[in-house]
Amino acid sequence: MIIVMKPNAKRESIQNITGIIEGKGLTAHISNGKEVTVIGVVGDKSKLQDQNLEIAEDVDKIVPVTESYKLANKKFHPEPSVIKVGNVSIGGDELIVMSGPCAVESRAQLIETAHAVKKAGAHILRGGAYKPRTSPYAFQGLEEEGIKFMKEAREETGLPVVCEVTSLAAIEAAVKYVDMLQIGARNMQNFYLLKEAGKTGLPVLLKRGLSATIDEWLNASEYIIAEGNPNVVLCERGIRTFETATRNTLDISAVPVIKNKSHLPIIVDPSHASGVRMYVKPLAMSAVAVGADGLMIETHPNPAIALSDGPQSLTFQELLELCSKIRPLAALMGKKF
Amino acid sequence: MIIVMKPNAKRESIQNITGIIEGKGLTAHISNGKEVTVIGVVGDKSKLQDQNLEIAEDVDKIVPVTESYKLANKKFHPEPSVIKVGNVSIGGDELIVMSGPCAVESRAQLIETAHAVKKAGAHILRGGAYKPRTSPYAFQGLEEEGIKFMKEAREETGLPVVCEVTSLAAIEAAVKYVDMLQIGARNMQNFYLLKEAGKTGLPVLLKRGLSATIDEWLNASEYIIAEGNPNVVLCERGIRTFETATRNTLDISAVPVIKNKSHLPIIVDPSHASGVRMYVKPLAMSAVAVGADGLMIETHPNPAIALSDGPQSLTFQELLELCSKIRPLAALMGKKF
Amino acid sequence: MIIVMKPNAKRESIQNITGIIEGKGLTAHISNGKEVTVIGVVGDKSKLQDQNLEIAEDVDKIVPVTESYKLANKKFHPEPSVIKVGNVSIGGDELIVMSGPCAVESRAQLIETAHAVKKAGAHILRGGAYKPRTSPYAFQGLEEEGIKFMKEAREETGLPVVCEVTSLAAIEAAVKYVDMLQIGARNMQNFYLLKEAGKTGLPVLLKRGLSATIDEWLNASEYIIAEGNPNVVLCERGIRTFETATRNTLDISAVPVIKNKSHLPIIVDPSHASGVRMYVKPLAMSAVAVGADGLMIETHPNPAIALSDGPQSLTFQELLELCSKIRPLAALMGKKF
Amino acid sequence: MIIVMKPNAKRESIQNITGIIEGKGLTAHISNGKEVTVIGVVGDKSKLQDQNLEIAEDVDKIVPVTESYKLANKKFHPEPSVIKVGNVSIGGDELIVMSGPCAVESRAQLIETAHAVKKAGAHILRGGAYKPRTSPYAFQGLEEEGIKFMKEAREETGLPVVCEVTSLAAIEAAVKYVDMLQIGARNMQNFYLLKEAGKTGLPVLLKRGLSATIDEWLNASEYIIAEGNPNVVLCERGIRTFETATRNTLDISAVPVIKNKSHLPIIVDPSHASGVRMYVKPLAMSAVAVGADGLMIETHPNPAIALSDGPQSLTFQELLELCSKIRPLAALMGKKF
Repeated sequence: MIIVMKPNAKRESIQNITGIIEGKGLTAHISNGKEVTVIGVVGDKSKLQDQNLEIAEDVDKIVPVTESYKLANKKFHPEPSVIKVGNVSIGGDELIVMSGPCAVESRAQLIETAHAVKKAGAHILRGGAYKPRTSPYAFQGLEEEGIKFMKEAREETGLPVVCEVTSLAAIEAAVKYVDMLQIGARNMQNFYLLKEAGKTGLPVLLKRGLSATIDEWLNASEYIIAEGNPNVVLCERGIRTFETATRNTLDISAVPVIKNKSHLPIIVDPSHASGVRMYVKPLAMSAVAVGADGLMIETHPNPAIALSDGPQSLTFQELLELCSKIRPLAALMGKKF
Repeated sequence: MIIVMKPNAKRESIQNITGIIEGKGLTAHISNGKEVTVIGVVGDKSKLQDQNLEIAEDVDKIVPVTESYKLANKKFHPEPSVIKVGNVSIGGDELIVMSGPCAVESRAQLIETAHAVKKAGAHILRGGAYKPRTSPYAFQGLEEEGIKFMKEAREETGLPVVCEVTSLAAIEAAVKYVDMLQIGARNMQNFYLLKEAGKTGLPVLLKRGLSATIDEWLNASEYIIAEGNPNVVLCERGIRTFETATRNTLDISAVPVIKNKSHLPIIVDPSHASGVRMYVKPLAMSAVAVGADGLMIETHPNPAIALSDGPQSLTFQELLELCSKIRPLAALMGKKF
Repeated sequence: MIIVMKPNAKRESIQNITGIIEGKGLTAHISNGKEVTVIGVVGDKSKLQDQNLEIAEDVDKIVPVTESYKLANKKFHPEPSVIKVGNVSIGGDELIVMSGPCAVESRAQLIETAHAVKKAGAHILRGGAYKPRTSPYAFQGLEEEGIKFMKEAREETGLPVVCEVTSLAAIEAAVKYVDMLQIGARNMQNFYLLKEAGKTGLPVLLKRGLSATIDEWLNASEYIIAEGNPNVVLCERGIRTFETATRNTLDISAVPVIKNKSHLPIIVDPSHASGVRMYVKPLAMSAVAVGADGLMIETHPNPAIALSDGPQSLTFQELLELCSKIRPLAALMGKKF
Repeated sequence: MIIVMKPNAKRESIQNITGIIEGKGLTAHISNGKEVTVIGVVGDKSKLQDQNLEIAEDVDKIVPVTESYKLANKKFHPEPSVIKVGNVSIGGDELIVMSGPCAVESRAQLIETAHAVKKAGAHILRGGAYKPRTSPYAFQGLEEEGIKFMKEAREETGLPVVCEVTSLAAIEAAVKYVDMLQIGARNMQNFYLLKEAGKTGLPVLLKRGLSATIDEWLNASEYIIAEGNPNVVLCERGIRTFETATRNTLDISAVPVIKNKSHLPIIVDPSHASGVRMYVKPLAMSAVAVGADGLMIETHPNPAIALSDGPQSLTFQELLELCSKIRPLAALMGKKF
């Protein structure tokens, strides 16, 4: 941590700061610049957690030099993590595709989709049973009944299943039936939920919040890992910007940035990022080419009557074509698919 | 709802759309423009909820003409709502100030603050017992013990108290002790929490999400009201933008926009909006001048050692001065304070 | 300037950096922290302008500690600047109102407006003769003819006049007729134009770019001042965010931030910030209460047929009412109006 | 154009609107919905340009149904445009790479770079002679001398050259020496410059503004085309968002969106988008995979001492490797390279 003083900071102000630092058993390293004095803190800066030095006399600003997330940080864990979901490994040499409907609508719809997803070559079945919707009047999901259908779909196809959880009650239901929990974008900083998901020990797919910085996202993952659960997979699904031609703006750069800052695997969801079916295929291609560990793609037997996110869902035929298109690209990127 | 067709849309595509609309018992109103055909839907558009017309053949886009929130909508409830919190009324002819520490740290800290808040002329005591923090290693709050202190502070000072809740467990604890529940920015679209808060019947202070549009915010309030609880007060606390000179960007325009679109009261939190103590006073003044129904201001006996948000907390003396400055401004705006 | 090294940076990498710093005649101040080594640069950092230390071996990041703008910086010029425009002073103890039509449409329209503006008590007449419009098919302004009308309006009313310039040709025309040049939001980083405006010596009203940070804005002002022209007035007119309920998001916090970082006066333009007539009055009030030095308000004899920005223009009656409302508020803020 | 009336709009208000529409020789098409009345305008809506119907009595909002850009619009020009720059074609079956230094620093630096660019297989040499820099104290470019070096580099290597222009004077100099003009992000809405660039007839590379929507970008291209110059190539180079891990946020979705809305070719600049050398390669790959017509990549003989944008410049060796990596990907995408 570095403390930048104001120009012409008084000698006593500087002494006050160094006194606080040394009083916590840390070392203050003073650097008198041409315009300003800078004080470096050497030692465990968490000891200063209850000191708000930015408002001390003559302090201009505080500059952190280390990240607050540790367990998710590549600096302290240089090897990429490989996360197991059932018999599937994410973050290794295989490109993983998760696919399924936005919302589970019925047993038949889900089973039919699961077979199509498997046929296309995807590895994990997704399906929403607890749906966070902007309006209370939109379809809210089948809840526990929906998760049970997920389990049946796994039994029929052998595909591991992932389902979003939005409350402790949902987690308690989900652990009985699914292989991976999903924390959605709107709950990325629902820290209570992150801790509870961490406690289950199940792998967690952590979607990026609509306006979360990459640092905040990694801090959110830290909440899960700090509960003793290192099985976190990140999912970039678009951020909120001023552009309205797409539902969100896919931050494709997040993939190499995460690869640089963390050891956690990262997949991309072009369906939610764009919100528009015809953009899903090119964005999925770009995600594979940028080095993502996998994709999450929405599909539905009949998108025109899907109860949630139909406009961005692929038909089964489109999913099949997309997977065929991705196969040689994955090979080019050195990934199996 | 209006459906805009693509130029040169085929006759069958138009017939397909009108067929779907009429099949739901609604009326399709066709307008053949110079370049494009536009189809208006007359009737209850919720009947089209399971139809994703935007992906039908030759459809260019769907334009909604009515808002999805109804109970929070001024169009259907033109009179401003006045919400009672204990003996305090928000949204009437009085300017309401809520103040207190970001986090409840101890009984002594809270009681001391409550007296200072009362002395300054504020009406409601705020205090956080469940703290959503970016990092899991930051102080997370005293939880139920903290809420009990809130109740004690009310007993000592007579001030109603408001406290943030972040989970069903927190709600269950809070209903026993506090007068108003707060849903924080990070949980604004935690729809499960909104419903549970709605069920309590207690007044709810709903903060705007960091990247929530005003429409999404009003839809979030709709979740609470739809549970039979009309006692919602909105709180603008800054949105996330590219600017980093302040922690968030106070969207001061949200006040007149809300006044135009909704009947719910709205207050402003300049402490979280700016994150910088010296900006709190001018922003509080601007909030009163723009027509807000109240303010939420953080204060602490000693901001330099506050466990949360010290840099933006006022000292008791500063709070007193701010209230003195606001008094004549409130009068000028026709509000009692 | 501070150079933060990566954890476990090699000794040679650190020596490489200190060698570069010392080779430029500067001093390197090394601070070995618990996790990382930090190198402070003491001396004139502009000597390192041709060295890209962020890509040197083992460097994690570079942290600037001083701002790149100097002439606009309050640290080196603590007294607030007062800028003269004709006989009007901006930045002193008077609240200054600039008003007029978005676009000059005809001699009659402008003269009529000038009289109304004067009657309302405003100090400076604004009017656009070179209009930057999103579409090439929208009205582009009367150009030099329009500026001539501005001069005539000044002669009739005695009000100084301000007009936007969008090219060197426009500047050359404007210097003959107007008292103040305006650089619009879209040209805030048209550095060529900034320099040319600087050379004229005329006072310059510099609007903030739609996505300009406050630091970039002050750097833009530095381009003008560095040409020997210190007569810069800043104008906050809304920034671009995800919110669409208003045309832009008025960054009201920019006023106290500028007051903290710079000595330049700052005014607020609620007309462009909101784009909606009914929001202009409350936002103007908030701008005065937050401490702005003035306002820019659009008015038009008949907004319903204005050729540019009619929806946000006040009628003369509304302008009069707004000024009456502002008068006691200005007094409360210690400003004459 | 559709006019949405407020609920309970008075009959006279509706008659007023239809009167205005019909007074302009257009047809008003009234649709009485359950909640609101909607009025469609049939005919040439530009006749309503001097009518601000949004502020007429009882009007809720105006919804445009057609885009304001026509010449750049795919709806009226379905075939993709192929733009010739010297002997190079952009937008056809070849993937085009433009490369070179951010700033031309000397004759030797540029010629050396030109040879490296050619060797790597790139098609067009880029180089900046007029540099828009945030601070007036940063290197501003060699201006006309720099463009002359560009011409020499073309003569030596046969590569066509592209150079940014920032003023009419720069355009007048550039037309003598370069094959393609570049309008930079900060000047995307410098409409004066767009028109002047349009008049030259030279191909124009139009970079997207930092906060420009895709619609505004296409409207900016319309300014150039409306001058009789259809030779526009778009360049996505990152937009401004809240995320700071990269300099800008590459909006990769802009590529398929542009392909859907316009016939103009689009290339991607991962160097400016990320601002970080190690992210350039993965982002370049993603751009090819998403379907871009080309890339713009910065390279420099020694990035560590580049006078502009060194941190994002590739070494010659890195450029060579990137091009080798792109070659099979381009083939997979059906493009020659």
